[in-house]
Amino acid sequence: MPILALALLLQAAPAAPLPTDPVEADWRAIPDDELMLVTLGDGRRIVIRLAARMAPAHVANVRALARARWWDGESVYRVQENWVAQWGDATEHKPLPAGITDRPPAEFEIAAFQPAVRMARSDSYSATSGITADGWPVASDGKAGWLTHCYGSVGVARDALPSTGSGAELFTPIGQSARRLDRNYTVVGRVIEGMQYLSALPRSEAAMGVYATPGERTGIASVRLASDLPAAERPRYQYRGTDNPRFAMAVRLRENPKPPTVSVGGASVCDVPLATRRAP
Amino acid sequence: MPILALALLLQAAPAAPLPTDPVEADWRAIPDDELMLVTLGDGRRIVIRLAARMAPAHVANVRALARARWWDGESVYRVQENWVAQWGDATEHKPLPAGITDRPPAEFEIAAFQPAVRMARSDSYSATSGITADGWPVASDGKAGWLTHCYGSVGVARDALPSTGSGAELFTPIGQSARRLDRNYTVVGRVIEGMQYLSALPRSEAAMGVYATPGERTGIASVRLASDLPAAERPRYQYRGTDNPRFAMAVRLRENPKPPTVSVGGASVCDVPLATRRAP
Repeated sequence: MPILALALLLQAAPAAPLPTDPVEADWRAIPDDELMLVTLGDGRRIVIRLAARMAPAHVANVRALARARWWDGESVYRVQENWVAQWGDATEHKPLPAGITDRPPAEFEIAAFQPAVRMARSDSYSATSGITADGWPVASDGKAGWLTHCYGSVGVARDALPSTGSGAELFTPIGQSARRLDRNYTVVGRVIEGMQYLSALPRSEAAMGVYATPGERTGIASVRLASDLPAAERPRYQYRGTDNPRFAMAVRLRENPKPPTVSVGGASVCDVPLATRRAP
Repeated sequence: MPILALALLLQAAPAAPLPTDPVEADWRAIPDDELMLVTLGDGRRIVIRLAARMAPAHVANVRALARARWWDGESVYRVQENWVAQWGDATEHKPLPAGITDRPPAEFEIAAFQPAVRMARSDSYSATSGITADGWPVASDGKAGWLTHCYGSVGVARDALPSTGSGAELFTPIGQSARRLDRNYTVVGRVIEGMQYLSALPRSEAAMGVYATPGERTGIASVRLASDLPAAERPRYQYRGTDNPRFAMAVRLRENPKPPTVSVGGASVCDVPLATRRAP
């Protein structure tokens, strides 16, 4: 297994912290109402961090849908190779809870582009990009800013404009190139645990990757906000804060790895490891 | 299924060719000895186009391994989430055929960077990039050129330098960010059919994504060059040539989609659809 034999060696190195490692104070709690737990029919769990500050109207809808238990018994009904896994109501006929429409105010862009660490180079999709202090990948063309569609981001599916999507149908990029959705779809969160339960699902070869038969779908047992669980049952997660020299150094090292690795001189904002963990 | 409802409408549009569609003359044969057929234990087939012109020494090794039936009975033994699927001999003890070493001349770079179509913008990993006339994604820093590690590229796993890898252990990126492997690993081809049989495999949570037990592996029944099959049994494939205005226009449209889609003004070289088809 040669490809990362070197990394295996590194794992055996002494446990002294590296200058790129987080210190304890870098870990910050994710609020209970910004944690969404998707439990599949077989009991496996996907944990989503909600971008409440970035997309408040859509996150409000998503919370209302979870509280209404709207997704319970629904499914992951679309898995398209090198594109997205999408879940919600496959029939599109299930009524939405009162007060929810598919035209919340557009939140394709964010109020302010304020990364704590900026990527060294522009990329194919943005003039500048970086990671916010609270751990979200963002980009900008110099005027507007937006949350980027990375592998594992959670976006709001929608009909043609002016629909902005209710939040009832959500998707996660499982391939390489979702950045072209930037500024066209609302990002409401990112998967922080269990991504492999979406990315490894069988692909559909039917149109748009929508499973041709109900039997192909992956059932969803329940979707809950952690804040709606009894306090004793709530899982607690933390994210790694990025407004510190340790994280900045980790980004620079990703952009400029040490020899003998040949540095290509940069890294995509979607290739920055954004650590989260269970609260110890 | 709102996300691409618009695209569904487009599918129902009249069948008149678009100016971005290939004409018949754009399709060119892939030589039989540049087609490698990986048949899994359950009969599903992955088709790989070999980059014979770009990485001749490693492709020579890969051909010799296929002709020696070296991979028959081996497996896909590593599937790491958002990273790679890797196949070959999981034990690393199987002797290589005579004449094959893990130190062929380095082919991390290519002889000449000559794209037929250049991407409009630089990206995080290269100053310029584009697609060669024969349909390979390439990039350059202004001096060296290289084949890019995109989703579906086939790379040669290796030990630490100075090993360049024999070609016996191959990997395919199944996630977002393999570009940081550029110039550090040899690209010998790309998957042109059956990618979903690699990308949807169960992820391993063991170190480096190497399956912890043999039972988790996906068996490989055989690996053959099309040129080693009886002529009547050879599948024949074509690639879409890119040195024509139709392809160039398709790239420009990917970079600048039509309103109401908001254009982010560019696209990654890994986000250019590189069409291949069964020869009609």
